Amino acid sequence: MENGKTEIVNVKTPFLGCAYYPEDWDDEQLAFDVERMREAGITCARIGEFAWRKMEPRPGQYEFGWLHRVVDALKAAGIAVVLGTPTATPPIWLGDAHPDIFKQSENGTRAQHGGRRHCCSNNPHYLDACDRIVRAMGREFGADANVIGWQLDNEIYSRGTDCTCEYCTAAFRDRLKREYGSVESLNARWDLNLFSQAYDRFDQVPGDWGAWHNPHRKYEWAAAHYDADIAFIHRQASILRQYTDAPIGTDMMPIDGMDYEKMCGATDVVMFNHYNTPENLCEAVFWFDFMRTLKDRPFWNTETATTWNGSTAIGQALKPEGYCRVNSWLPVALGGACNMYWLWRQHWAGHELMHGSLLSPEGRPTHTFGEVRQTAAEFAEASAFLNGTTVKTPVALHFTSRSWQLFDQQQIVNGNNYFENVQTVHRALTRCGVRPDVIGAMHPLEGYKLLVSPCLMTLEDGDLAERIRAFVENGGVWVAGPMTDIRNGIGAHYTDRAMGMLEDWLGVRLEYGVPTDGTVLQTAWEDGGDLRAEKWAELYTLQTGERLASVTGGHTALTGKSVLSRHKVGKGEVILCGTLLRGADLDRLLTLALSDAQAQPFRVTGELQITPRAGETQEGLVLCETGHKPASVRIGQPMTDLLTGEVFRDTVPVEPYGVRIMAKG
Amino acid sequence: MENGKTEIVNVKTPFLGCAYYPEDWDDEQLAFDVERMREAGITCARIGEFAWRKMEPRPGQYEFGWLHRVVDALKAAGIAVVLGTPTATPPIWLGDAHPDIFKQSENGTRAQHGGRRHCCSNNPHYLDACDRIVRAMGREFGADANVIGWQLDNEIYSRGTDCTCEYCTAAFRDRLKREYGSVESLNARWDLNLFSQAYDRFDQVPGDWGAWHNPHRKYEWAAAHYDADIAFIHRQASILRQYTDAPIGTDMMPIDGMDYEKMCGATDVVMFNHYNTPENLCEAVFWFDFMRTLKDRPFWNTETATTWNGSTAIGQALKPEGYCRVNSWLPVALGGACNMYWLWRQHWAGHELMHGSLLSPEGRPTHTFGEVRQTAAEFAEASAFLNGTTVKTPVALHFTSRSWQLFDQQQIVNGNNYFENVQTVHRALTRCGVRPDVIGAMHPLEGYKLLVSPCLMTLEDGDLAERIRAFVENGGVWVAGPMTDIRNGIGAHYTDRAMGMLEDWLGVRLEYGVPTDGTVLQTAWEDGGDLRAEKWAELYTLQTGERLASVTGGHTALTGKSVLSRHKVGKGEVILCGTLLRGADLDRLLTLALSDAQAQPFRVTGELQITPRAGETQEGLVLCETGHKPASVRIGQPMTDLLTGEVFRDTVPVEPYGVRIMAKG
Amino acid sequence: MENGKTEIVNVKTPFLGCAYYPEDWDDEQLAFDVERMREAGITCARIGEFAWRKMEPRPGQYEFGWLHRVVDALKAAGIAVVLGTPTATPPIWLGDAHPDIFKQSENGTRAQHGGRRHCCSNNPHYLDACDRIVRAMGREFGADANVIGWQLDNEIYSRGTDCTCEYCTAAFRDRLKREYGSVESLNARWDLNLFSQAYDRFDQVPGDWGAWHNPHRKYEWAAAHYDADIAFIHRQASILRQYTDAPIGTDMMPIDGMDYEKMCGATDVVMFNHYNTPENLCEAVFWFDFMRTLKDRPFWNTETATTWNGSTAIGQALKPEGYCRVNSWLPVALGGACNMYWLWRQHWAGHELMHGSLLSPEGRPTHTFGEVRQTAAEFAEASAFLNGTTVKTPVALHFTSRSWQLFDQQQIVNGNNYFENVQTVHRALTRCGVRPDVIGAMHPLEGYKLLVSPCLMTLEDGDLAERIRAFVENGGVWVAGPMTDIRNGIGAHYTDRAMGMLEDWLGVRLEYGVPTDGTVLQTAWEDGGDLRAEKWAELYTLQTGERLASVTGGHTALTGKSVLSRHKVGKGEVILCGTLLRGADLDRLLTLALSDAQAQPFRVTGELQITPRAGETQEGLVLCETGHKPASVRIGQPMTDLLTGEVFRDTVPVEPYGVRIMAKG
Repeated sequence: MENGKTEIVNVKTPFLGCAYYPEDWDDEQLAFDVERMREAGITCARIGEFAWRKMEPRPGQYEFGWLHRVVDALKAAGIAVVLGTPTATPPIWLGDAHPDIFKQSENGTRAQHGGRRHCCSNNPHYLDACDRIVRAMGREFGADANVIGWQLDNEIYSRGTDCTCEYCTAAFRDRLKREYGSVESLNARWDLNLFSQAYDRFDQVPGDWGAWHNPHRKYEWAAAHYDADIAFIHRQASILRQYTDAPIGTDMMPIDGMDYEKMCGATDVVMFNHYNTPENLCEAVFWFDFMRTLKDRPFWNTETATTWNGSTAIGQALKPEGYCRVNSWLPVALGGACNMYWLWRQHWAGHELMHGSLLSPEGRPTHTFGEVRQTAAEFAEASAFLNGTTVKTPVALHFTSRSWQLFDQQQIVNGNNYFENVQTVHRALTRCGVRPDVIGAMHPLEGYKLLVSPCLMTLEDGDLAERIRAFVENGGVWVAGPMTDIRNGIGAHYTDRAMGMLEDWLGVRLEYGVPTDGTVLQTAWEDGGDLRAEKWAELYTLQTGERLASVTGGHTALTGKSVLSRHKVGKGEVILCGTLLRGADLDRLLTLALSDAQAQPFRVTGELQITPRAGETQEGLVLCETGHKPASVRIGQPMTDLLTGEVFRDTVPVEPYGVRIMAKG
Repeated sequence: MENGKTEIVNVKTPFLGCAYYPEDWDDEQLAFDVERMREAGITCARIGEFAWRKMEPRPGQYEFGWLHRVVDALKAAGIAVVLGTPTATPPIWLGDAHPDIFKQSENGTRAQHGGRRHCCSNNPHYLDACDRIVRAMGREFGADANVIGWQLDNEIYSRGTDCTCEYCTAAFRDRLKREYGSVESLNARWDLNLFSQAYDRFDQVPGDWGAWHNPHRKYEWAAAHYDADIAFIHRQASILRQYTDAPIGTDMMPIDGMDYEKMCGATDVVMFNHYNTPENLCEAVFWFDFMRTLKDRPFWNTETATTWNGSTAIGQALKPEGYCRVNSWLPVALGGACNMYWLWRQHWAGHELMHGSLLSPEGRPTHTFGEVRQTAAEFAEASAFLNGTTVKTPVALHFTSRSWQLFDQQQIVNGNNYFENVQTVHRALTRCGVRPDVIGAMHPLEGYKLLVSPCLMTLEDGDLAERIRAFVENGGVWVAGPMTDIRNGIGAHYTDRAMGMLEDWLGVRLEYGVPTDGTVLQTAWEDGGDLRAEKWAELYTLQTGERLASVTGGHTALTGKSVLSRHKVGKGEVILCGTLLRGADLDRLLTLALSDAQAQPFRVTGELQITPRAGETQEGLVLCETGHKPASVRIGQPMTDLLTGEVFRDTVPVEPYGVRIMAKG
Repeated sequence: MENGKTEIVNVKTPFLGCAYYPEDWDDEQLAFDVERMREAGITCARIGEFAWRKMEPRPGQYEFGWLHRVVDALKAAGIAVVLGTPTATPPIWLGDAHPDIFKQSENGTRAQHGGRRHCCSNNPHYLDACDRIVRAMGREFGADANVIGWQLDNEIYSRGTDCTCEYCTAAFRDRLKREYGSVESLNARWDLNLFSQAYDRFDQVPGDWGAWHNPHRKYEWAAAHYDADIAFIHRQASILRQYTDAPIGTDMMPIDGMDYEKMCGATDVVMFNHYNTPENLCEAVFWFDFMRTLKDRPFWNTETATTWNGSTAIGQALKPEGYCRVNSWLPVALGGACNMYWLWRQHWAGHELMHGSLLSPEGRPTHTFGEVRQTAAEFAEASAFLNGTTVKTPVALHFTSRSWQLFDQQQIVNGNNYFENVQTVHRALTRCGVRPDVIGAMHPLEGYKLLVSPCLMTLEDGDLAERIRAFVENGGVWVAGPMTDIRNGIGAHYTDRAMGMLEDWLGVRLEYGVPTDGTVLQTAWEDGGDLRAEKWAELYTLQTGERLASVTGGHTALTGKSVLSRHKVGKGEVILCGTLLRGADLDRLLTLALSDAQAQPFRVTGELQITPRAGETQEGLVLCETGHKPASVRIGQPMTDLLTGEVFRDTVPVEPYGVRIMAKG
């Protein structure tokens, strides 16, 4: 699996890993910790990510001996290493020499030494220093066979903490020059005739503070910062690649609007950190369904808690027994190669000393230690099946960074949240017995039968429009909307039509978009049942196609307009949905679409995550219960649970937080 | 109607208008838009208000050709123009040359180019540039007969965004010198012996930031900013007046504490923008009752939405059918000359691209287009009656900027809101079947029978005290209080008496002011029914007068004190109310006062806005339902609905959001 | 009582006082005010605290004549004086000459003249000017026999408004050098290997802003500011002491984390200001139980309201009759020498013009004037008994500034509030019929039978650990926990054990600390009754001792662990409590502990504050009802109410807000 490397020292996938901070402990604890890791079933340790000062205590003076000793001690115990570049936390000598490495806030104040991820991704002094430490690490450990992977920086993001320094402002203006060519073009595309906003020169365009800015410039300002972070990661990757052929990645988090496709463009393996609670465990499932599609290589779940996350205070309560196990299984069940915990041993001091772990500061096992060991054993048990199969599904759900960013600057209607809207559809698909691939705008559509694109605000995102058109013409079923295709690539209206491609293509006319709170507007399915339109409704006149639901009251100008319709196009079909749906209405729509697409879902009860897997010689299902309630699925053919040996023929029951690896036969 | 101008090109009042931004559209759209305006019944377009850069792309280089073409195209279609000065949005070349034109925040940072209304009204560079563009526009369009009015700037306010720059600080100190003469006088009147606050020189008095300031200086700081904005508008008016005799105004908004009387002092016509929802439509009614009294000339409703307001997100839901019509009728029903919409055609980009309009960006009519056309037709139908009559009422309600500003700095008791308190009385008067004139402190009292002054914190506001005294002595009924006459003109207590004029005049003694939450203090009408005292109660000992309600429990020191009393004075009467009342208690008080004043209200059901109108030859009522419930009014004599032709003799029913123009006979 | 002074002009304790601001009034009001004070029963006036400018209108030019006249007029009326140093409000000439005296905010902006307590306690210019005015006042009034006490500054605190100036940063670094010796030691103890945070030099350590700092440095930053304030007060005390032998204090407030023991270390008398409402009157009781233990001399209650506090708005409602009296009695009942009101006469202007008083600005008595007079008379009635007895109790409750500060930086679990947790125990002890001494970390433990230490996060606070150990070994009963002894002195974990002293000492092992919201973790008393664990549970394995409650469900790894246990140690006992308890569970625990300690509580009903007092010849109880409900206590022997003459033999009823002074016999 490791991309050209034939030898991965004793790490059998799926594997369990953990973050380990040897710099936090006296040397004599190393042997103790390594031995306990073996007991827990840990086969991979993530180390180094914040230890810059210990590697380079003074500029250019490198000390890697201690780190070699750790890597070697782990290796001796059969534990592989993922090495992190420590660029999220520069040593004091760097900030002391160059105070401008720190982010500048909207009111001109600078961040300071302390904490982490507080440096500007555009600052040349910071970038130079990062280059040097990354190169030094590459030289030192690039050929170490026990280093099975590299993690660049840590949880990078600019979201909400945009630096406003001169370098960032310059980078923003450079981006504008690149994207718009001339200031006249920028003025025109941003419609800067309004409010006399137009610029005479690019160098007059200020950063995004101190003014009520329009959504198009806010989009570009945010995009410039996302891109700076992405460039920062890619720069490290290109250095490291000179010294190693182990896979390189960066551990990403859920970040509003992040362009995950672009971020992973120049790395080898998708890494993802997540923390969740029983209430939003399904959100982790959503992310895994997305991470799986970003690369062919199985993704790495680089961080999750054994118990709870927490800084100086814990924000969660004790979770039920079994939660740790199912949470550990989910990334692997959904297509990942491993699960890693943050962290091995609870910090004895510092910012995050209440964060859950496998050992307490005094070295005692936490109460989920047993669940971790069980998971390790089960990973081994299921290894052959998992390595011999991959996740296969005919259903894709769009989740694009462009839409996320545009909705971020332009909500359309108050309380409208893109991420939440996509999540709602994702959960409904799960309820319908489907395992959706969550895909970005660049992902190929070939091979899917059903594509669902809620709130895909613009189709002007690469050649997305053409590819969707081809997908449908070739026989695919596309559920489009609401709020889909209603803006150009920077979030502006069309002025000659209400939708970019859909009106002409489908023979519809978007007459009205109206906000609704459920009190005035009335809508119903054509068979008479009420349909509950949420927050926003787009109402159409149809020239062709079949009306599925329409307006039945609220205003005479609206009554009779279509809100949901079905259109045969080429060999395929478009279902045009004009409003946010929930619950039974959403399930009804998706069931219809699944049926039209001939994508047969499973019949499930409860909150069951079903992941069909198939390989050359094997086939089966991974089942994970995420709602802490009894669940079941009809399989209709004999299958064996590889963990328990139980054989089922028709219906498989799954206990609360239960996990089953069902192989055919 | 147009103040000395004999010719108003084809604009018959009442008229429908709309804001139009030709600078936002390609030239070829002009003919399309003008034709659609005619279809809608629009007879006046507001243009130019933000188009400075298009008029003056470089300093001193004026380009008005495009604007002439627009004015002329509108004229050709019989559509008049209100021209706006574009000073709310200076072009980049001004801010680029003089960054200090932008407002300075409390922490010293400057606003930037982008957005609007972000410049300092005291900045000399900004003022000079404004002078020049206003003069240039005046020269260019002052004599154009199709320009029937001028709007200065747009929605000016300083509220909550006070600039702290050196010019503003200097203007503040100048005001203090003017108002207080010497620093010793300022020290004494602000009581600056407290906290060792006294100043030695005016130039030591800092702006209103970085300290816990006393309410008197906060009042003066805010007043200095209100005055700067007012001076800014008056300065433009005085320039424009050299070039035109069309009426000049500035489109005002609901701004906490704004001195509307002073703002309108040097303009010709009152202009007002408002946006509302079904929940607070009655607030718009309040504002129209106020705008009507500011000048003899009928006010112009310069902005309201056809559907909803919104920036990049809409904060409202679909409104019931009929709302657009009644909302369009209200300003006209209540004494205005027109209703104008913001905006004609939805922006295709920018800060406010979700704001409701008459056309969508692609040029399609919005769902309320029909209601607009109906309103236009009805305005024409009712024109003769409306132009032949004016609103007449014997009841006035005080609403003074001084009290608003003082309560803003000095709430007396938490949660006490002057605006809300006056609104509460306004709504109760409406419920009682009365159309009140809402009047400022300077408004004459002659001609009224009943004057209601809730929370008129000070009578030291011009010659208000003398005029009220005369009003009562001559036979008027005055409802005074609560929290009336309890402070001097800058919000300080008297030290030799508890009230400025009322104690001696009425023979009462204000013994105690106590906060109440309804749990301890008990008060009752003299006939025994409970009276609910809200938030604050002023308790009196009476030497003369008739007690109407008093304290019945809570503390032995309070029991038996009067909280509501009636006093015969001269030919008139004062009703002294010591507490905030609501609901039935308030209705009872007002009914009593209306009866004593012999101001006969109408008998109504539902939330009906009744506006009596009378002229030389005609008389009647305009009825607007604002609660979306069936309503009715007893008229007791035959009247004809000019819109439907229906004749009623005794009771007129009005449907939800209905409008009737009832003429006698 | 007055510490070496034999003569206290006509002030018999307990006495009633009030704050008086003669600088706020014309001279002719002095006689009026003094006469009214006599009527009210006031025998002491606090004056001068904010009148710096009137004493020193220009630098070095002192004008004390006016103040002498006030002191003398009061003296003539038999009213003593507490003189305040006016350093909280420097005159404009100081800030004008040295703008850096004002606090600097996190974003670098300075406070300004206006308000109060806005100067930096480390600024040399401010300190010099303070020295001079304090010295001048000492010279002028130090020997005045009518000045019976000195108050330094006013309500000093840094909490939440930490100055960030160069002097404060230097003071912070000086503290670090002093506390840690070397930067290597600081790096080690703060665990700065984490996040590459370690410093090379002390002068690299920035102030506590602009970064996500770790809890240990946040603790030190806050401590440096607390210490600066304390040093500021002590500096004034040492100057004044050269001129007077009247007792010196500073009027303290409830300030999160303040080190009251240290603050009072160099003053003579504890002064305390408090404002409360019926809802949290018991919080005042808590503070008095604490203030009583800070010095042997009875504390002075320097401020409370007659009615309500308030700045420009009142945040409270009318309180029931009797509240003013019981609120006035409480400090005296609980061991203080006096009660003083803020303020005598309501300000006629300024920041706090709505604050309650004894007279209105126009000189009229407020509605509680009668309750004040009654209290004055009752103080005289009970004087002999009160002066002949002191408060005696066998129960102490720990409340340490170190724990407060550490929990402030490190909540352990969200919503966990140290102050609230200690309050909860305090209220439960009151419910159990006990008057607890609330004691700081330095307070001797001798003489107590029961010591309760909830959330005493660290025992590394002087020799606290040794003294507790001795207390128990010698026969005391100690209730320890939860969250007790779990950190070292700066809030870091131990790495070789989970608790500092308790594990080895008691033979227990703290296995797990888990957050709980009551849904998953189940705990029960050993007899089977449910025990409700709040927020956080520490679960133990016991080698010795008696289990009182343990885990019954939630996770198999936790089931069976002890959460509450009893351990015989030496002649005494430790009750180890692993979780926050409330209501019946807490009462059960405390009842058990009181029984084991043979500290016999009273049997009470209602919310009754019982204060046992004993002296050489007298003994009795002071009873104050604080819940506004009828209450009673069983006394079991004859006692006489000194205020009413009533004699009770078994049970004493107390009316809502009632006060009784019960003397034996």
